[in-house]
Amino acid sequence: MAAVQACNILITGANRGLGLEMVKQLVENAPQEQHIFATCRDPDGPKSESAKTVGSLLGTKGLNLLINNAAILAKGIVKTSKAEDLKNSFTTNVIGPLLIIQEYLPYLQAAAKASGMPGMSCNKAAIINISTIGGSMATMPPMFGKFPVLPYCVSKAGFNMLTVLAAEELKTDEILCMALHPGWVKTDLGGKNATLEPKESIEGVLRVIGGLTEKDQGGFLDYTGATLPW
Amino acid sequence: MAAVQACNILITGANRGLGLEMVKQLVENAPQEQHIFATCRDPDGPKSESAKTVGSLLGTKGLNLLINNAAILAKGIVKTSKAEDLKNSFTTNVIGPLLIIQEYLPYLQAAAKASGMPGMSCNKAAIINISTIGGSMATMPPMFGKFPVLPYCVSKAGFNMLTVLAAEELKTDEILCMALHPGWVKTDLGGKNATLEPKESIEGVLRVIGGLTEKDQGGFLDYTGATLPW
Ligand SMILES: NC(=O)c1ccc[n+]([C@@H]2O[C@H](COP(=O)([O-])OP(=O)(O)OC[C@H]3O[C@@H](n4cnc5c(N)ncnc54)[C@H](OP(=O)(O)O)[C@@H]3O)[C@@H](O)[C@H]2O)c1
Ligand SMILES: NC(=O)c1ccc[n+]([C@@H]2O[C@H](COP(=O)([O-])OP(=O)(O)OC[C@H]3O[C@@H](n4cnc5c(N)ncnc54)[C@H](OP(=O)(O)O)[C@@H]3O)[C@@H](O)[C@H]2O)c1
Repeated sequence: MAAVQACNILITGANRGLGLEMVKQLVENAPQEQHIFATCRDPDGPKSESAKTVGSLLGTKGLNLLINNAAILAKGIVKTSKAEDLKNSFTTNVIGPLLIIQEYLPYLQAAAKASGMPGMSCNKAAIINISTIGGSMATMPPMFGKFPVLPYCVSKAGFNMLTVLAAEELKTDEILCMALHPGWVKTDLGGKNATLEPKESIEGVLRVIGGLTEKDQGGFLDYTGATLPW
Repeated sequence: MAAVQACNILITGANRGLGLEMVKQLVENAPQEQHIFATCRDPDGPKSESAKTVGSLLGTKGLNLLINNAAILAKGIVKTSKAEDLKNSFTTNVIGPLLIIQEYLPYLQAAAKASGMPGMSCNKAAIINISTIGGSMATMPPMFGKFPVLPYCVSKAGFNMLTVLAAEELKTDEILCMALHPGWVKTDLGGKNATLEPKESIEGVLRVIGGLTEKDQGGFLDYTGATLPW
């Protein structure tokens, strides 16, 4: 079975929920010499200094796998959604990942160059954007009554556009880029009625990531590997 | 041929470009007793007072047709896009239309109730969101090299999500809601290399709007009436 064997991995929002579960499972199966950078929010921290610190630890191998996982969920329907909630959701769920990609792109490019492998894979150089079926125009409307989370959905649709444009732009760098829906999972964000435990979701997520190739560039898959419509 | 016979119409961004052309063509074919509210940006204006003024002019017939047309275009690719441009694009292209919908919803509901007609149409109660093929995840990537406008695309994908969720929420009010791509048009936004003149684009746009029924709820059409993929 395909597995994530990437040398150097960075995950955002790794202090709880799915990000934390990813780190746990990756550490269990870590090959030697792997670096996993489990990052979390630190408003008083050294900001872009962190990227340089990561860079110096990565060395010549660069960054193989960037997982944009951090996100917030704000509720609302058309009649009730607040401008402030849309703005904050967009800032965290779209602008945040874009700035992360811009910051780490040189290290991803270095990894793609250093790999020597043909094609694309998560072990060479990849950006995985943790998205949601709630960002799918085709699928979300009939779920809206049960999940009245308009600011979240709007931001994740924008995030999906960022993903497909990044895939288009970065294919010449041989950096894989795609969107991944982890299923409905019992976390603070998913709530206690969710159908999956983090363990099961992330086992699937890592299996899917491990099996990605250039044919998945700009794609939208769920944790079982099924393709989702935009 | 189907035509826009709505009594009361409100259009945003009506001082130039496609918004102005809509007003011109609507005025030419205006039935008696029609009110066309051609609105434009006025940062020092009376803000939500305007909606009340419109409301008192609408009377018991309510607002039949709201056209969210105003938008800005900001350029950038993944490597170069500025957070500020994403934020401003999202504010104008998504949050703005949402606030407009919230403000005028009572008047659209009044129009739907007052109409006495079955089903949905632009002459009863409708929200037309002027979107773009640039907001389509399926279609935009191969066009990205020619149109490097990431902040715009990301905002319009979010706007499309707002459209489908509004269509879902407002169907019980019998308010039609859909997204419409006007083609690539010679305006300040479209640029001088565009393929269409505003006249031709808006003739098509108004023909499509005039022919909409409940089967178009939550749909995404272009100015020729062709369905676009998300
Ligand atoms: N759970 C589900 O059912 C589900 C379904 C579909 C998609 N997803 C996606 O899966 C990803 C992880 O979700 P989750 O369920 O693990 O959520 P979660 O348990 O609420 O965890 C969210 C993580 O994001 C971080 N975060 C939030 N705002 C941030 C900011 N402004 N800057 C930096 N970090 C920030 C949080 O850090 P703090 O602790 O500092 O707040 C936390 O580490 C998200 O992208 C979500 O959209 C989840
Ligand atoms: N032209 C094309 O090729 C094309 C293609 C696809 C989609 N579209 C869509 O068609 C619509 C109209 O575009 P256009 O080509 O007519 O653009 P345009 O000529 O640039 O006109 C844009 C209009 O939006 C208004 N506007 C911009 N920012 C605003 C704000 N913050 N508040 C209020 N009004 C604001 C402008 O008012 P000011 O004069 O005050 O700036 C102007 O009236 C847009 O939604 C655009 O995305 C156009």
